[in-house]
Amino acid sequence: MLSKAQIKYIQSLQHKKYRQKFGQFIAEGDKIVQELLADRRSVQAVYATREWLLDHRALAESAAGIDIQEIAPPVLKQLSSLSTPHQALALVNIPPPSEPVLQGHVTLVLETIQDPGNLGTIIRIADWFGIRQIICSPDCVDAWNAKTIQSTMGSAMRVPVIVKDIPGLLTANEHIPAYAATLHGENIVQTPKITEGLILIGNESRGLSEAVLKLCHHHITIPRIGQAESLNAAVATGIICGRLLL
Amino acid sequence: MLSKAQIKYIQSLQHKKYRQKFGQFIAEGDKIVQELLADRRSVQAVYATREWLLDHRALAESAAGIDIQEIAPPVLKQLSSLSTPHQALALVNIPPPSEPVLQGHVTLVLETIQDPGNLGTIIRIADWFGIRQIICSPDCVDAWNAKTIQSTMGSAMRVPVIVKDIPGLLTANEHIPAYAATLHGENIVQTPKITEGLILIGNESRGLSEAVLKLCHHHITIPRIGQAESLNAAVATGIICGRLLL
Repeated sequence: MLSKAQIKYIQSLQHKKYRQKFGQFIAEGDKIVQELLADRRSVQAVYATREWLLDHRALAESAAGIDIQEIAPPVLKQLSSLSTPHQALALVNIPPPSEPVLQGHVTLVLETIQDPGNLGTIIRIADWFGIRQIICSPDCVDAWNAKTIQSTMGSAMRVPVIVKDIPGLLTANEHIPAYAATLHGENIVQTPKITEGLILIGNESRGLSEAVLKLCHHHITIPRIGQAESLNAAVATGIICGRLLL
Repeated sequence: MLSKAQIKYIQSLQHKKYRQKFGQFIAEGDKIVQELLADRRSVQAVYATREWLLDHRALAESAAGIDIQEIAPPVLKQLSSLSTPHQALALVNIPPPSEPVLQGHVTLVLETIQDPGNLGTIIRIADWFGIRQIICSPDCVDAWNAKTIQSTMGSAMRVPVIVKDIPGLLTANEHIPAYAATLHGENIVQTPKITEGLILIGNESRGLSEAVLKLCHHHITIPRIGQAESLNAAVATGIICGRLLL
């Protein structure tokens, strides 16, 4: 059974401040907890309903050193940040920060992405296309937010997300080609396939800032045939990866 | 001021059954309501806070025949299906059903798409790429769901969504090339650009059914370079459109 202090601790991890302080986050969702358990290295505890544990006992028991706790659905609801909580929840260590390796790789660079679902979906896209790392501006939504983790569908631990000042990064790496996604640039159909470079995606409503745009070598655009004002940021990232990396 | 009966009526439109019965839906969100008012034809009423009306009075007043009502935030919360309600909400007529025109056009065909956000994002993608219509299987999430409408970002009224039995549609139109999105088909990079055809996207976890797959002429796949198990359905739709239509 969880103590009041444990419940309070887990709830505190709904806030970025405490995730940073304690270096842990909460992953919610049956499939994500399974994936994390299969991967194992970072999971410290699993809190799940009796039902879930019956279905996944072997997996949970094979995970040596992990604290497995059966909890009642009302307690799960208390711990969850979601309006419809899942059957299982894991307490996971945030991996130590790493330094980006830009040379010879394609890197996604995100400026002021605000929606946790978009960030999670972009992490999943990166994992699909074999992108080694994502760099986020300091004002992006936190990568260890429960909704972000949920949208990654298990890719969160495979693609490091590194927080950096974007203009500083571009200035320090001006020999690495930087491709800015904009509404009025070169048609992406004309852009040759790349094996090294930064692909920059901006905020959901405002796009990339002027400060970032002027530091990029290429301004690229997904041509619009119809009338939509814009594309969802994650969808735009997918389309650009589908043209530049395949 | 809204009567109790009006509040009850608006709340009933959160359910597909009543949307179908009354032929109306609720659009939530400042930007979407603005877009609908600019378009105007289908809006019957706007319910908004004093603050929103002050900012958009000219737009709202230019909309002849539309019932504009100022309502207090707590009432807006009562009317909203979202946990964080917006400043404005519109009561909109569902357009009359249309018949698909497949010849000479590219059409998106969705089987058992369950997530309203995914459907809305796919409608927005269709609007961006100038796709004339979307066909949904009867078990897709409803296109007039508030979350779907919100995710379309204003594209909902521009792309007709038509509900049809998919195997029946494919059998009746076997002269129209059908491209099924699968995990084990031809690399989309090899697929030539199309100007006519059906692009079929399946359920978020199971993909397309066997019944549908065997009726399609082409099985196409976004090659996976990394390790993600799958892509989000809307992202996959975007990537496929970005390869086949540009």
